[in-house]
Amino acid sequence: MNAHDPKAGSLEQRLRAIGAERYHDKHPFHDMLHNGRCTPDQVRAWVINRWAYQAAIPMKDAAFLSRCDDPQMRREWRSRIEDHDGGVDEGGGIRRWLKLAEAVGLDPDYVASGRGVLPATQFAVDAYVRYVRDMPLLQAVASSLTELFAPSIHERRIEGMLKHYDFANTESLSYFRKRLTEAPKDVKFGLAWVLEHADTPEKEDAACEALIFKTNVLWAQLDALWGAYVEPGRIPPGAWRPGEGMA
Amino acid sequence: MNAHDPKAGSLEQRLRAIGAERYHDKHPFHDMLHNGRCTPDQVRAWVINRWAYQAAIPMKDAAFLSRCDDPQMRREWRSRIEDHDGGVDEGGGIRRWLKLAEAVGLDPDYVASGRGVLPATQFAVDAYVRYVRDMPLLQAVASSLTELFAPSIHERRIEGMLKHYDFANTESLSYFRKRLTEAPKDVKFGLAWVLEHADTPEKEDAACEALIFKTNVLWAQLDALWGAYVEPGRIPPGAWRPGEGMA
Repeated sequence: MNAHDPKAGSLEQRLRAIGAERYHDKHPFHDMLHNGRCTPDQVRAWVINRWAYQAAIPMKDAAFLSRCDDPQMRREWRSRIEDHDGGVDEGGGIRRWLKLAEAVGLDPDYVASGRGVLPATQFAVDAYVRYVRDMPLLQAVASSLTELFAPSIHERRIEGMLKHYDFANTESLSYFRKRLTEAPKDVKFGLAWVLEHADTPEKEDAACEALIFKTNVLWAQLDALWGAYVEPGRIPPGAWRPGEGMA
Repeated sequence: MNAHDPKAGSLEQRLRAIGAERYHDKHPFHDMLHNGRCTPDQVRAWVINRWAYQAAIPMKDAAFLSRCDDPQMRREWRSRIEDHDGGVDEGGGIRRWLKLAEAVGLDPDYVASGRGVLPATQFAVDAYVRYVRDMPLLQAVASSLTELFAPSIHERRIEGMLKHYDFANTESLSYFRKRLTEAPKDVKFGLAWVLEHADTPEKEDAACEALIFKTNVLWAQLDALWGAYVEPGRIPPGAWRPGEGMA
């Protein structure tokens, strides 16, 4: 650590500072969502677009496994896929997300088809999958560390949604409830791994860059949602329009 | 052609209809830009972000060449790289773009660094490069056919900018002037190739999908610009802020 370095501080402090500055809990869309100021169609647009992200997570983690030559690390990491995909017949985060879709009046098959997702959302999500597939393992792991900041937003979301929206109940919000225990387990492993392997200043910088990249992936999704469905509310050609995809 | 097919029509008609519906000349940002309603900082934001796209075009075309095993086709296609990159010492579209950057008061080195580009812009641009690298050759070629619609937007841009902005002159707008002759040459080859090789209904559909994908890439860039610098004008963390990167 260099006293002249404006980025001085432990790597963990630097990573947490990135979250404090850039994590998407700071985006005003979440403020609207959690405080009951979203219209039903704005909630639906969020559910449809956030599906693109949820659906890509197991592919992202499979891309990670596909390039990880340490069996023990693969064993630790594999539960992420299991958590999201669930079993052949039931369970898993993406099935829980579709429960939320049903609860807000959407046809879960429409949501699962990915039709209507904003192109900007898909570009951001695809960028994340490819980042994890293509970048050095350190950055691939570090990009997952937004989960450091996820439990508190999920807690606020559950509380705010139960208070403000009729569709919110134990079943429809089960995705978030489950993440409260899954995310800390995942991130504990990921953070320890990054802190151990980022053993030069260059690698520390690379880990921070990876986390910034990931916060950009999340932020860009909410900006796209805002532009299409809040302000100016200009829906790009081909994206979901209110009334489509209803159950 | 099937009379019951709602998409009936020749492939060329279908491709042109996609442009008529989805090309970014329909985006209100271009209306602002061409009619002198952009502030100097909004023009700068456009120049900085559109750089990300310009800078990626030669890489996109190199990705195309890297997977094209027909020498004659590579010879036809290679001029695209030459047109954009220019020679070792001078010429080329990306140097001309930096002339525009200078003319609007930006430091061309800042623009060329790509710092300050909106993450959403970069995600869209990267999606395009990867599409051309990964998809079947037919889709890779078809995705270039937005150039069918480019000359008319460039003509309007040159005329509108000369009329409305002090920085506009022959040198600063040379990028667009040059594209008036380059784009038709490129697209003539690309269109003929697609019409010849899309010889089944499935391939026709794939070519149309590719062009829709590309229109999404362009549209998403202007939506991102609008959200950050027009309405609501919320600049994402880390992106260019007025005052930065000036000459």
